[in-house]
Amino acid sequence: MSISFEIEAKSGSARLGRLTTPHGVVETPVFMPVGTVASVKGVSQDILEELGVQILLGNTYHLYLRPGVEQVRQLGGLHRFMAWPRAILTDSGGFQVFSLNELRQVTEEGVKFRSHLDGSSHFLTPESALEAQIGLGADIIMAFDECTEHPVEPERVRQSMELTLRWAERSKKCFEAHKQEVPWATDHVGPDVPVGAGERKLAGAAERQIAEDETAELRSAGQVRTPAPTWFGATQALFGIVQGGMDLALRKESAERTIEIGFPGYAIGGLSVGEPRALTREVVEATLQHLPADKPRYLMGVGTPEEIVEYASLGVDMMDCVLPTRAARHGLLFTSEGRVSIKQARYAGDQGPLDPNCGCRVCQRYSRAYLRHLYAANEVLAQVLNTVHNLSFYLDTMRAVRHSIALGNKVQLFPGEQSQAKP
Amino acid sequence: MSISFEIEAKSGSARLGRLTTPHGVVETPVFMPVGTVASVKGVSQDILEELGVQILLGNTYHLYLRPGVEQVRQLGGLHRFMAWPRAILTDSGGFQVFSLNELRQVTEEGVKFRSHLDGSSHFLTPESALEAQIGLGADIIMAFDECTEHPVEPERVRQSMELTLRWAERSKKCFEAHKQEVPWATDHVGPDVPVGAGERKLAGAAERQIAEDETAELRSAGQVRTPAPTWFGATQALFGIVQGGMDLALRKESAERTIEIGFPGYAIGGLSVGEPRALTREVVEATLQHLPADKPRYLMGVGTPEEIVEYASLGVDMMDCVLPTRAARHGLLFTSEGRVSIKQARYAGDQGPLDPNCGCRVCQRYSRAYLRHLYAANEVLAQVLNTVHNLSFYLDTMRAVRHSIALGNKVQLFPGEQSQAKP
Repeated sequence: MSISFEIEAKSGSARLGRLTTPHGVVETPVFMPVGTVASVKGVSQDILEELGVQILLGNTYHLYLRPGVEQVRQLGGLHRFMAWPRAILTDSGGFQVFSLNELRQVTEEGVKFRSHLDGSSHFLTPESALEAQIGLGADIIMAFDECTEHPVEPERVRQSMELTLRWAERSKKCFEAHKQEVPWATDHVGPDVPVGAGERKLAGAAERQIAEDETAELRSAGQVRTPAPTWFGATQALFGIVQGGMDLALRKESAERTIEIGFPGYAIGGLSVGEPRALTREVVEATLQHLPADKPRYLMGVGTPEEIVEYASLGVDMMDCVLPTRAARHGLLFTSEGRVSIKQARYAGDQGPLDPNCGCRVCQRYSRAYLRHLYAANEVLAQVLNTVHNLSFYLDTMRAVRHSIALGNKVQLFPGEQSQAKP
Repeated sequence: MSISFEIEAKSGSARLGRLTTPHGVVETPVFMPVGTVASVKGVSQDILEELGVQILLGNTYHLYLRPGVEQVRQLGGLHRFMAWPRAILTDSGGFQVFSLNELRQVTEEGVKFRSHLDGSSHFLTPESALEAQIGLGADIIMAFDECTEHPVEPERVRQSMELTLRWAERSKKCFEAHKQEVPWATDHVGPDVPVGAGERKLAGAAERQIAEDETAELRSAGQVRTPAPTWFGATQALFGIVQGGMDLALRKESAERTIEIGFPGYAIGGLSVGEPRALTREVVEATLQHLPADKPRYLMGVGTPEEIVEYASLGVDMMDCVLPTRAARHGLLFTSEGRVSIKQARYAGDQGPLDPNCGCRVCQRYSRAYLRHLYAANEVLAQVLNTVHNLSFYLDTMRAVRHSIALGNKVQLFPGEQSQAKP
């Protein structure tokens, strides 16, 4: 067992899904906050739980450089290392190698690059990226891919797509050979394990029986999150990535040939690399048509609140983006009334909440005047509170999207403000 | 009404007290975390409440410069501005003018100094410092004083002490003339007002009756914190500051003449300015003898965990220090097993909690390895979590001190590890 995925409702092309992982259930469409180096910058894990985060994204490239994969593996994997009992997805590192390293050298074997931290030289291959992700132990891991810049020569796009396909095969082969080496291979994990219970190592059949009895007891007491059985010997799930630049024919070919290799989920990569938004949308919509309906579809690295709603309406199940967290650090806040640049002097005397329609800790307690002061005074709490609010806004947005799908309504931003009638 | 102070138990020279302010009860001896510019760096107010913080310290000098007193006053005062319903104390600004401004010019009238932020020129007098503190609206405010460096000529110490005494008289006179101007003068405040209820402005007698009925109802439902009556028209409490450098005779004279002016509480200022710790202790012990037993005694700007326990054992009721919060930002953590410099590589693989005897959110969830990683990776969460732990350690330390006094035990660090027999 690695993951299972059930579609519970549909509305147009949008799907309401239930993605079950070894570390809990993820309701889709889902937005995954980015915890680059095993931390969503400034926000403690208990606050993330309170916000309802069901899955976090970690960056393999950053974790590989610091603290290092072996360190995390020895400490039981990312979940235990960062005290996060819920699901985690790691990217392959390919995008960071692409975006943070101007001097990278790509060969058939892999990518040579220099650390952005200390300039040290590193070589990542599909195999070493996979082994890194197995050592980190996320629930969902990604095949190693190459991203291409935009705009670029058509021939370069095809070459890159072909390379990504060959790397996808190598990634899968490596995964199949090593998937039992995930740090929690012998842990008592499973979607119905209560928070905090995943810490014990279970050695033999007797211990398994004890754990199963315990779980049954907890389940009957209503203390477990889902009725699914506890999984022993669970493994990670490896997703393939569709490339092909902005060429719709190449996207189709990439999708078909990636599906031929066979993965439990598929990502659309290589977007948000500088192309116009309308083009992103066109490529996403075209690519989705070629992805299997019964597998989760993950659009990497998007987007604004409007965009994540739109992509969900097209049938995307999973998304991630640094926008809510990075924008928060720059004082750009997303609200139901539009963007607020909290650094502006106009908010210095504003006693109202940041977003009157938001129920997060920040909007329930603090005024715009206070948030503006914290930002202007360069106080660390500004970053903390701004990030909590922006994440809350993104998660609430996706919660509303899921609710709309469940009701069979049109998926749109702030459905509460629209007519309740079905379209 | 401003404050009331009752001593509930004694053990040696140490006193267990109950300081009732317009914004709640403070159990003494108390350590007050420092929230320099209306924020304890990195920690949200709800976490401070959870830690059991009953009183915060704000720095008048910093708030005067940014966001400015008038801004805070117009927003209802510090409590409402920073959404902190419990007690606050502001210092007079004298110590920051002294420590942050090498080019300050002291005259009989006041102190001319340049902002450490933008170099702009400012002039603080006892009256303007008092008006600033009334505008900020803390529960306890401090007379404007001059601090002297150490070591210094004896004649300079006397001159400074005499100046501080004249400034104390001017501070009191100004306070008496303007104390009704506190921003919450017409608020429904009082030690038994439940958290969050202090937000309403009450205009007349009818509203007061409604509020009193409401409070009585809440009290009978067990939802208010103390049985004291709600205060209407409460004012701030102005404390005097004893100076006199390291000269015990001058300290005695300063204490006696400050008491003659008459304040509801007395602070010992001018220490922790570079003198040896043994001398600090000697001056504190000698000065305490000359302070009235029935008034709160506040030792400004100390100290380490060992020191705050020692000063409490000598009869100090209130202390504040940036040490736990500033040390946290530099990775220096206080634990029941001693200091931990979390940046050290030896903790990189340490799966144990920071302090196995600590019940704080940080020690209950995260490993030393994770905290070390966050610090090494320069993650903001390092500062947040380190600060939460250090504050928790300081507050727990004072909680243990109060417990020892209640039991009549000797006041010492980690009394739980000692014999339970009375000395």
